[in-house]
Amino acid sequence: MVKVIIIGSGNVAQHLIAAFQNPQNLGTEIELVQVFSRQIGSVSQLLDSDHITNDLDTLAEADLYIIAVSDDAIAAISSKLLFKNRLVVHTSGSVPLNALDDNNRKGVFYPLQTFTKNKAVDFRTIPICLESENATDFQLLEKVAKAISDKTFAINSEQRKALHIAAVFVNNFTNHLYQIGQEICLENQVPFEILKPLIAETANKIMLLSPEEAQTGPAKRNDTDTIEAHEAFLSNQNHLTIYKTLTQSIQQNGKKL
Amino acid sequence: MVKVIIIGSGNVAQHLIAAFQNPQNLGTEIELVQVFSRQIGSVSQLLDSDHITNDLDTLAEADLYIIAVSDDAIAAISSKLLFKNRLVVHTSGSVPLNALDDNNRKGVFYPLQTFTKNKAVDFRTIPICLESENATDFQLLEKVAKAISDKTFAINSEQRKALHIAAVFVNNFTNHLYQIGQEICLENQVPFEILKPLIAETANKIMLLSPEEAQTGPAKRNDTDTIEAHEAFLSNQNHLTIYKTLTQSIQQNGKKL
Repeated sequence: MVKVIIIGSGNVAQHLIAAFQNPQNLGTEIELVQVFSRQIGSVSQLLDSDHITNDLDTLAEADLYIIAVSDDAIAAISSKLLFKNRLVVHTSGSVPLNALDDNNRKGVFYPLQTFTKNKAVDFRTIPICLESENATDFQLLEKVAKAISDKTFAINSEQRKALHIAAVFVNNFTNHLYQIGQEICLENQVPFEILKPLIAETANKIMLLSPEEAQTGPAKRNDTDTIEAHEAFLSNQNHLTIYKTLTQSIQQNGKKL
Repeated sequence: MVKVIIIGSGNVAQHLIAAFQNPQNLGTEIELVQVFSRQIGSVSQLLDSDHITNDLDTLAEADLYIIAVSDDAIAAISSKLLFKNRLVVHTSGSVPLNALDDNNRKGVFYPLQTFTKNKAVDFRTIPICLESENATDFQLLEKVAKAISDKTFAINSEQRKALHIAAVFVNNFTNHLYQIGQEICLENQVPFEILKPLIAETANKIMLLSPEEAQTGPAKRNDTDTIEAHEAFLSNQNHLTIYKTLTQSIQQNGKKL
């Protein structure tokens, strides 16, 4: 049995705890033996209270400690662990492996997904990006990751940094474009609902086509009449700046090909 | 029986023809009696050849003529119709109702979706935006639209223009962000596949949460360390400009609230 302990009680920690507890993932040789949460109550709906501690000094012995806390707390919490030479990993996309304290063997266990409180996700479809200092630790991380997900990848710190930035574009920035779409609807008394099937299909398309193949619209067609009409319509300066920046970027792409 | 004729054979025309022919939509009182296509072969896989014409002068009599051609061809083709005072509509998001020729009654039948050749879409979930010059024509348009979709909306030309611009943001621009994500992956030898579950979940979230509620990431958190690290990492000047523009826009949003 591989014993796992999760340190943290936020969004990522809660989704990880739920994944390890998921009945469909039982029968694997992985056991979540304990969770550290400053507030016992934050995770008590997920597992029995005798498996929860709010005292780092009482952490049980385990094969893997997963620190799932906010980026700026990772280094501090890893330096407060009393044991040595065990495998300690964090779950962040943007923190390097070496931010972890030297007292223990280091690794990364980064599930690349956006987690929403109280919204279940199918963890088996979530890519888990793994990194370790040696091959034996990597095998252990892979075994644990495969217990909850069908998609595991070996990703080093530099690649993970690139992935995290790419994720900002396809997730954070995309969501901000949804918000601008909503603002334009509100300003013109049109229900934002009308755009939702389009949003769903835009994401759907990318599962089958490359972004280049899926690209459509006035910028792609170099339809300057429509582009000028849109720019004249946009009274919000911020919307206009973003419209121009992204239109130019799509047009430059066309020239590259 | 309401008789409908479709003029055009492109992407939108083909998906409309398929929707009217869909067995689940039979039993309604709508009949697609004819399709005009310059090349008979472009639509012959969708309906019997005796219902296809490549000669505008042989168009049958019908209650509704739907012109589904490229934006810049709508005015010309509407002026070539030999009959008068019938209901003629176009399917464009960006062309005003008045672009249609004065010889006939005008309207708009705009299905707001991105259509891909050879990729079926569930037309019943697609919002159809309707506009007409009078209430009787509107009722007819609504009857026809409801035969193929569960979502119909009365949208005037000004609102439609706003919707079309909002669609450029949530569809064309979003797809371009997917492309930048892919470029960053390629430059760093990371498979773009890893980002696809995140892309799907980002679109999924917006079905349940507002864009404001769904917004996460370094710009939202005002995490200047991460933002600076990302900006230092981006060697592609175009990616950097877009990163800065969208980050500032998200940060300004935070200040508004």
